[in-house]
Amino acid sequence: MRRSAGKVTVTAADATALLHGWFHVVRLGDAAFASRPGDPGTAEHHAPASTLRVLDHWDNMDVHPAMGQVERGYAGASIFYDAGQVRTDLSRVTAYGRLLAAVGIDRVAVNNVNVHAREARLLTDDLPEVARIAAALRPYGVRAHLSVSFAAPRTLGGLPTSDPLDDDVRAWWRETAARVWETIPDFGGFVVKADSEGQPGPFAYGRDHADGANMLAEAVAPHGGLIHWRVFVYNHTQDWRDRSTDRARAAHDHFAPLDGRFADDVIVQVKHGPLDFQVREPVSPVLAAMPRTRVALELQVTQEYTGQQQHAVYLGPAWSEVLRWRPWGDDGATVADVVAPAGGFAAVSNVGDDRFWTGHPLAQANLYAYGRLTWDPTLDATTVLDEWITLTFPDAAGELREGIHAVLDESWRTYELYTAPLGIGFMVRPGHHYGPDVDGYEYTPWGTYHFADRDGIGVDRTRATGTGCTGQYPAPWRDVYESLDTCPDELLLFFHHVPYTHVLHSGTTVVQHIYDTHFEGVERVRAMVDRWEQVAPLVSDDVARRGRERLAVQLRSAVEWRDQVNTYFFRKSGIPDQRGRTFY
Amino acid sequence: MRRSAGKVTVTAADATALLHGWFHVVRLGDAAFASRPGDPGTAEHHAPASTLRVLDHWDNMDVHPAMGQVERGYAGASIFYDAGQVRTDLSRVTAYGRLLAAVGIDRVAVNNVNVHAREARLLTDDLPEVARIAAALRPYGVRAHLSVSFAAPRTLGGLPTSDPLDDDVRAWWRETAARVWETIPDFGGFVVKADSEGQPGPFAYGRDHADGANMLAEAVAPHGGLIHWRVFVYNHTQDWRDRSTDRARAAHDHFAPLDGRFADDVIVQVKHGPLDFQVREPVSPVLAAMPRTRVALELQVTQEYTGQQQHAVYLGPAWSEVLRWRPWGDDGATVADVVAPAGGFAAVSNVGDDRFWTGHPLAQANLYAYGRLTWDPTLDATTVLDEWITLTFPDAAGELREGIHAVLDESWRTYELYTAPLGIGFMVRPGHHYGPDVDGYEYTPWGTYHFADRDGIGVDRTRATGTGCTGQYPAPWRDVYESLDTCPDELLLFFHHVPYTHVLHSGTTVVQHIYDTHFEGVERVRAMVDRWEQVAPLVSDDVARRGRERLAVQLRSAVEWRDQVNTYFFRKSGIPDQRGRTFY
Repeated sequence: MRRSAGKVTVTAADATALLHGWFHVVRLGDAAFASRPGDPGTAEHHAPASTLRVLDHWDNMDVHPAMGQVERGYAGASIFYDAGQVRTDLSRVTAYGRLLAAVGIDRVAVNNVNVHAREARLLTDDLPEVARIAAALRPYGVRAHLSVSFAAPRTLGGLPTSDPLDDDVRAWWRETAARVWETIPDFGGFVVKADSEGQPGPFAYGRDHADGANMLAEAVAPHGGLIHWRVFVYNHTQDWRDRSTDRARAAHDHFAPLDGRFADDVIVQVKHGPLDFQVREPVSPVLAAMPRTRVALELQVTQEYTGQQQHAVYLGPAWSEVLRWRPWGDDGATVADVVAPAGGFAAVSNVGDDRFWTGHPLAQANLYAYGRLTWDPTLDATTVLDEWITLTFPDAAGELREGIHAVLDESWRTYELYTAPLGIGFMVRPGHHYGPDVDGYEYTPWGTYHFADRDGIGVDRTRATGTGCTGQYPAPWRDVYESLDTCPDELLLFFHHVPYTHVLHSGTTVVQHIYDTHFEGVERVRAMVDRWEQVAPLVSDDVARRGRERLAVQLRSAVEWRDQVNTYFFRKSGIPDQRGRTFY
Repeated sequence: MRRSAGKVTVTAADATALLHGWFHVVRLGDAAFASRPGDPGTAEHHAPASTLRVLDHWDNMDVHPAMGQVERGYAGASIFYDAGQVRTDLSRVTAYGRLLAAVGIDRVAVNNVNVHAREARLLTDDLPEVARIAAALRPYGVRAHLSVSFAAPRTLGGLPTSDPLDDDVRAWWRETAARVWETIPDFGGFVVKADSEGQPGPFAYGRDHADGANMLAEAVAPHGGLIHWRVFVYNHTQDWRDRSTDRARAAHDHFAPLDGRFADDVIVQVKHGPLDFQVREPVSPVLAAMPRTRVALELQVTQEYTGQQQHAVYLGPAWSEVLRWRPWGDDGATVADVVAPAGGFAAVSNVGDDRFWTGHPLAQANLYAYGRLTWDPTLDATTVLDEWITLTFPDAAGELREGIHAVLDESWRTYELYTAPLGIGFMVRPGHHYGPDVDGYEYTPWGTYHFADRDGIGVDRTRATGTGCTGQYPAPWRDVYESLDTCPDELLLFFHHVPYTHVLHSGTTVVQHIYDTHFEGVERVRAMVDRWEQVAPLVSDDVARRGRERLAVQLRSAVEWRDQVNTYFFRKSGIPDQRGRTFY
């Protein structure tokens, strides 16, 4: 982009890049046309950190009786499907393509990674319908991907096996892929959740995940396609009695040994933390463990564990922490440095057919931030939020701008305050994952435990006495996390089991920290409610009303979290609050 | 019935009675024809304790996404409905009528007490379809009832209100009832769940339940119909923080003051315990509190909280305890004496389209026992089980008979041993109510709490320091339950909050009792499994296999109950097992 004398020239290598340049001008607004003193006419070069900035839709064609249509979707029904079919009218999908282009996202996987029987057929019988979706997105430079079932050769192809080393299976995938690209020449590739939570995979045939992924890569490579292969592989039928098995270790245990064996067209897609999109986790050690592999970082824009778009939670700061984290210490590369060049980014979408796209109007900021931070991971999350406010409320004067900042800037940490403390995770109602249930997962097969007893809480993941998860990290973190003296407070219970009376670096005890943060979290939500009321007259009535409704829900929920968590730990520890506040 | 010289004569007042007499002869088998020495030719008179022995089907026409078709049904789909319609082929319903007549049940409510929109229309548009069901049952003397929605005048009749004192509402019900009896002259009546768990009721109009029930009675009285009005009324959106509200008090609080105000055609239907069909509860105080009302006892044949027909649990002994309990002490009347003459009995059915009718083949014994014990509440539950064995396995030699007795005789107490201890109730997974979750309901709005902390457990329902629930009982129970010295162990935690170290009448502490019973319960299930294997060759393959599958499930579940409950209380109390067994 070159500016001179009130004129802006955008030059780009291709049409999509030109479009992104144009949206950059829109983003700058009048500022794009202001010549900058001392630097007139100089060209600005803009390029994304990664060429892979994917959004994964966990959309189903049918409505699941418990999950609804969009798995972990909190914004209405799918924009792609209705009543088991691709929608007849895809004009909203085209509008969505425009929205994505405006925030810098250029690839979309259009169906759930849990591929059910109906959706499996998108790969074959319903390919013309996928082509319609791709066509609707194409004007805005967004390419379609599909989630596929590893069992497809059996279930769709009628073969007796899906063994990745079987010649007929390989041929089936090659022919199937050829048909896909014949129908959709700019098709992006396949997303695969294999051997995970009941999805089929190579383990059934005694093969490993490199065998499985490479077999698919062989099929898509001739067409320039990609395989996004998820590392979310763990034993979801674990015995809760067994403290030696550690779900947090599983992805690294399964995948790190495979480094170097994956084909060039395979992207190994890694959730940002070792567990599952909790409000606070350490960064996944897998991200630093596969230097000879194209590794992608997977984020969750949809707020599964962070308030389900009932709660206003701006996730930009959380993602920014992950992107900037340096696995090898202060002098080493960041996570963004690791993933951006080859593997890129993926995230679970938060969009549905809701009139605000995202249920909570403010949850749009998360979609925007995902696009912007994966374009340029060095951006400041609060600055990105400011951009979103400007673009969303073009008339936003200082009061509205400040109000939305006041509601959102610290909202992620606020959510952390009133929910699961000190990196312990979970404590949500099983199944839907909304609202508190401290023991909800404690005696289940899901591998997510806190081990709270009357004396203490936390998971011992040290090498010295625990599951050894700390050893999956490179230095210095393997030692920082190992030692109680150096482990950061916010991850203490992720790595250590400690007495309630353990004194944090902050100077307070674990149990008093639990009490204090839960009281403070609720007060912060009250302040968010008040602040919204102040600025509500400055936004449209429907936005004001929806925001008001959701913030009221958030406050009630925060009070529930506070009272249940505090009461649970008071009943268990017997330690009273130093400030004498109420437990039940 | 008169026997003489190998000849049996059955004389009855009407056709249905003759049929019941005939089934009695079948039940006796050869013995019916053996003349009894010293008493030849003497007439035996048989008559049921009550003329009202109803089975309530919680069947829906549609399939509920979470609940399935039959709410709390564990035996397949509804025998009445398929795909939102009354089944075309009702031959199985006729077979069911025969089954019911054989066990002495003569009335069936054919739809769920939670009346959804589709099922509401059975009362009006779909009345001809109900008539088909009634016709299918009629040959066996079984009369049909319907569950109706209190909101029907609004939702079906288009009236602006369902106020029971509104003239138009009353007229609508009169006209509607007239059409029902015109279509089905031997129709039984209506079942109503009002102001309960979201169902509409008279409270919305500032009327009480006598107003509501009497308005309906006025409509059915001209036709000889009945209103079964359930007392299961409580606040299901209670604040768990509020220890002064006590769900166990609710039915008595609502209904006892209305005694004497209900019309003659109203049966007030009372669940056997104050909560909700738990494995162990005290008897509901409502049963002794309404001498001027026709009160029915409601039991639950379907095993909602007692193993969901995966577990072999013979409920006859539990019901027998309720029927024989004497609310006014040793010299007073029994529960059976109270309810049989005027109100009778109702129970939730355990039947579906499963090939064994009840999922678990042995769960048929519960249906049989319900019929027999409500015909004659003085029967011994084990004797009744013996009848069932004889009728179900006509060739049962001693080994099979003893084997099934060994599996079932103590199975209810076994289930109690490995699940919720000392009358505390619940501790099940919310929603589906299967399997352990000690804190599952602890912080919910449902009013079912145990208040366990690191020091003790139980609900203080005393008059001295608690909710005063003990005061709802007549003497001597109001005092027996009030005092720690006299409260029976098995109800201790229902009425009292005690330390884990409290010593039971049995001589052991509360926490050691929890540990001991949970270990013992599992060992008893192991013995059930072994015993079934011994007798399995003596029954048909399909019964043997189904029994084996279910007992394996029961054993796994019992182990889960044992380990979760014991570990929960060990973690909370810190008190080790006196015998050093394993916790986690």
